Amino acid sequence: MTHKVVIIGAVAAGMSAATRLRRLDEAAHIVVLEAGDHPSFANCGLPYYVGGVIPERDSLLLHTPQSLAARFAIDVRVRSRVTAIDRAARTVTVTLADGSTYDEAYDSLVLSPGASPIVPDIPGASRALTLRDVSDVDRLAAATADAGTALVIGAGFVGLEVAENLAHRGLDVTVVERAPQVLTALDPELAIRVEQRLTARGVRVLTGASVISLGPADAVVTTADGATEKVAAGVVVAAIGVQPEGSLAATAGLALGPRGSILVDHDMRTSDPAIFAVGDAATKTDAFGAEPALIPLANLANRHGRRVADVIAGRPHRAAASVGTAVVGVFGLTAAATGRSERRLAAEGRPYRAIHTHPLDHAGYYPGATQMALKLLVDPATDKILGAQGVGEAGVERRIDVIATAMAGGLTASSLADLELAYAPAYGSAKDPVNMLGYVAENLAAGETPAVQWRELMDAEDEPVVLDVRTAAEHARGTVTVPWQAPLVMPLDSLRERHHELPRDRRIVVHCQVGQRGHTATRLLRQLGYDAVNLDGGWLTWRDAQASLTREPVPASAA
Amino acid sequence: MTHKVVIIGAVAAGMSAATRLRRLDEAAHIVVLEAGDHPSFANCGLPYYVGGVIPERDSLLLHTPQSLAARFAIDVRVRSRVTAIDRAARTVTVTLADGSTYDEAYDSLVLSPGASPIVPDIPGASRALTLRDVSDVDRLAAATADAGTALVIGAGFVGLEVAENLAHRGLDVTVVERAPQVLTALDPELAIRVEQRLTARGVRVLTGASVISLGPADAVVTTADGATEKVAAGVVVAAIGVQPEGSLAATAGLALGPRGSILVDHDMRTSDPAIFAVGDAATKTDAFGAEPALIPLANLANRHGRRVADVIAGRPHRAAASVGTAVVGVFGLTAAATGRSERRLAAEGRPYRAIHTHPLDHAGYYPGATQMALKLLVDPATDKILGAQGVGEAGVERRIDVIATAMAGGLTASSLADLELAYAPAYGSAKDPVNMLGYVAENLAAGETPAVQWRELMDAEDEPVVLDVRTAAEHARGTVTVPWQAPLVMPLDSLRERHHELPRDRRIVVHCQVGQRGHTATRLLRQLGYDAVNLDGGWLTWRDAQASLTREPVPASAA
Repeated sequence: MTHKVVIIGAVAAGMSAATRLRRLDEAAHIVVLEAGDHPSFANCGLPYYVGGVIPERDSLLLHTPQSLAARFAIDVRVRSRVTAIDRAARTVTVTLADGSTYDEAYDSLVLSPGASPIVPDIPGASRALTLRDVSDVDRLAAATADAGTALVIGAGFVGLEVAENLAHRGLDVTVVERAPQVLTALDPELAIRVEQRLTARGVRVLTGASVISLGPADAVVTTADGATEKVAAGVVVAAIGVQPEGSLAATAGLALGPRGSILVDHDMRTSDPAIFAVGDAATKTDAFGAEPALIPLANLANRHGRRVADVIAGRPHRAAASVGTAVVGVFGLTAAATGRSERRLAAEGRPYRAIHTHPLDHAGYYPGATQMALKLLVDPATDKILGAQGVGEAGVERRIDVIATAMAGGLTASSLADLELAYAPAYGSAKDPVNMLGYVAENLAAGETPAVQWRELMDAEDEPVVLDVRTAAEHARGTVTVPWQAPLVMPLDSLRERHHELPRDRRIVVHCQVGQRGHTATRLLRQLGYDAVNLDGGWLTWRDAQASLTREPVPASAA
Repeated sequence: MTHKVVIIGAVAAGMSAATRLRRLDEAAHIVVLEAGDHPSFANCGLPYYVGGVIPERDSLLLHTPQSLAARFAIDVRVRSRVTAIDRAARTVTVTLADGSTYDEAYDSLVLSPGASPIVPDIPGASRALTLRDVSDVDRLAAATADAGTALVIGAGFVGLEVAENLAHRGLDVTVVERAPQVLTALDPELAIRVEQRLTARGVRVLTGASVISLGPADAVVTTADGATEKVAAGVVVAAIGVQPEGSLAATAGLALGPRGSILVDHDMRTSDPAIFAVGDAATKTDAFGAEPALIPLANLANRHGRRVADVIAGRPHRAAASVGTAVVGVFGLTAAATGRSERRLAAEGRPYRAIHTHPLDHAGYYPGATQMALKLLVDPATDKILGAQGVGEAGVERRIDVIATAMAGGLTASSLADLELAYAPAYGSAKDPVNMLGYVAENLAAGETPAVQWRELMDAEDEPVVLDVRTAAEHARGTVTVPWQAPLVMPLDSLRERHHELPRDRRIVVHCQVGQRGHTATRLLRQLGYDAVNLDGGWLTWRDAQASLTREPVPASAA
């Protein structure tokens, strides 16, 4: 007997489910109901069409109902909103644009309605545009034509993509973010580099700020220092996050997850065995915790679409637990993250160890090498990798991918040292940045080089001696300063001669530029009997962290 | 009591051992004996200095004996060749440039002498230059000044780097390789792309050819078709591989590995418990076999240098088994490989399954996407990953690194599908190329889409129907041809209507451009009762494989 599968939502997860199901079961009757105008469009490409980076609108439209019918014998119906599920009858009610309705029966139902951009609840909010589908992008493109200025509310992945693209279109862009930093998937000492890049390219960034109201051509913003100012806003884009579309599931009495999402098990099955849910509306299994998680990422949506088809076709295939891996490009800078951030681990009260490095993307003696910032989060008890993040000009996504893969394989942080990664001078280093993270992890796990974090040094009650082991010239260009001590420099290469100048009864926090010479100095001093520790990430991490704490809001005239 | 460690060889492995040992043991007495003029030079950068890509010779010199003494209190002695080991007395004999000798005692001895470039045993061979250290690069740079033409013998990683760099210097370059292809770490259908790139950039490539003799300004070469010709050779570089420097160890009676290398165990210990060996001279533990292996790669040398220091310092640290991961850039094209090639698996008589794909490095709708060729080798019994290789304009090293990491983590080929890799349209695809390899592996493991390899189709005794399911336009631009049948095209989107035109009593080999539509077509036809299989890698793999088999030697006039 023919199995009839109805799928709600024709983008990433829904279309992956539909096409996979067809390949597994030529006899299945597959109906896809899409509320919008287009199936299977390139939603991750929308900001780049706004910016003109993707010049052709048609290139966003990957399929049509006709092409899907021809290739996969799938019955795709656009402008067909499902407004009710009758679980007892196993039917859904479809409402068309003209208000007419009909019922469609199913044997299995897949909910893939996605998530809707959140519009801030402020006066004038109806002006705010959002970016979810091709119609939205058309509206935004039209609105930007004569706008001159733009306000982007929210500095997450999508917000920053929109900001960059509006700047590409020549608009004067202000980004307002309620959190004290951009890109909260990253920790502040890494995210600050992205903020600095935005500012350097003329985008005004207001963090710790809130939009209070929207006027016809401007917005009222409360800034971090509590002041209120008007910000020009010829066009307004809200990118403050997404709300899982769980209302249909809720009305049908299905069990819900956090924030009104649709709760599913490892097989992506809801509390009704005939109904499945995938994509941004559905919960994910968290690789680091017992609670169902929301991870609205395209790669998981596509994957789980495929998996749910396997399950429906009788090939049970539990979805792997998710860590969440994401990347964004911002004016040539790449920021990427996988797993947990330090902020989130701290909020969860979970023990962790942080490692900061600043490796070159390839051998320093080969032209064009650039320095990136990497951070690794490690479980100190098990050496398990909890997360990683990076910001840099080149090679960042590669290292984050490698670490995400190591996490999937259950490799310990220390064993990153042994990974055999592709090396030639133009491509990396004989000791790849990921290997170096492993070396540091190993040294920390063995207690060889105890490290102190930038924040721990700021808060240190014992007022340790802070010792710069770089050269005098490097020291003069900027160094770690603490209120209890004048800056002190003693270059690494002079340490064997001069160490007797140091006190033996106080803790010594050693630092260099990135942590590597500091490691050597710490090892030396500890073997000589000093209570030395290394400032993790060295001067660069300290400098970035201070910048993230102390930066002044950019004055309006500089924007 | 102070432990005295003597290290022979001051480049990658030796210096990693020395500096790590110092950090672990400030009291150790560390002597490094280097036969050449420079410690710790950037040997992987040598070809790029020849080509002028690295403009400053000094940037190759990472340390001096003085800088190493100041920072690490290491006694580095250059131009100090060790000519004998007295294992009973625990001394080595050091011979200086002037012929004088002295003995140096050790508690632990680390052999890191490297491997020497092999010079072909042909008349005139003394003309051939090799590239091992800074003195070699000085000689080669001087020789190229007025040479006009260059002959590179050997088309492995180093040979191709040298060839590209000599071409950059304006020389007319011919590469002669005895094997029927360049880069034998890759299989021929991938390596051909590198050869084509070389040829397109004006480097003449003669594969299956041998240099018979060298004259003062030319060489006699026997080409693949058995003819003999003279090739202009103002300068000659031999890059036909390296010979592990095991002679000192052999004379001292240490156990040897393959090709005269120094046999070591997991702790990098030789048959004498006081003597260790690391780097290109020492054997490696093979991740895929019981026999000791030779893997002359910088990343392993550096790593094992560190590990041997751990062992000597009393922190036993077994080296991880090695898979071998390497990358090379050739005129903008990247070729990378990890683990075993198909050729090697076949030679070892080991069962494997090959998967070819041709994914874009990032989303096709985002500008600048380029297509790469990827290949995955899988153990059909266990789904274990045995190797991977790739060639392309961008993103190849990233995917090979991810697969190398998956191998280290023991992930199966199918589970590559579930990796969460960094995706945004400029960085990848929601289904990353590595995920897609996992999907194909899964489909093969489940028997969903049986595949046939290009060579299997060429050799097929059942003369199957070969069916192109691309569009007529694609078909017209080139298609799979077999002697037993005229080309047949039936576009995928018409297959449900037209399949009855196909025979039900014969095997049908379906193909598309890259294998993806072929997969859909195969699934469809099999469910309709046909004996359909998919041509792995589609037309592109077939085309490349044919090119690797049938290409004519480039005539001299075209070079």
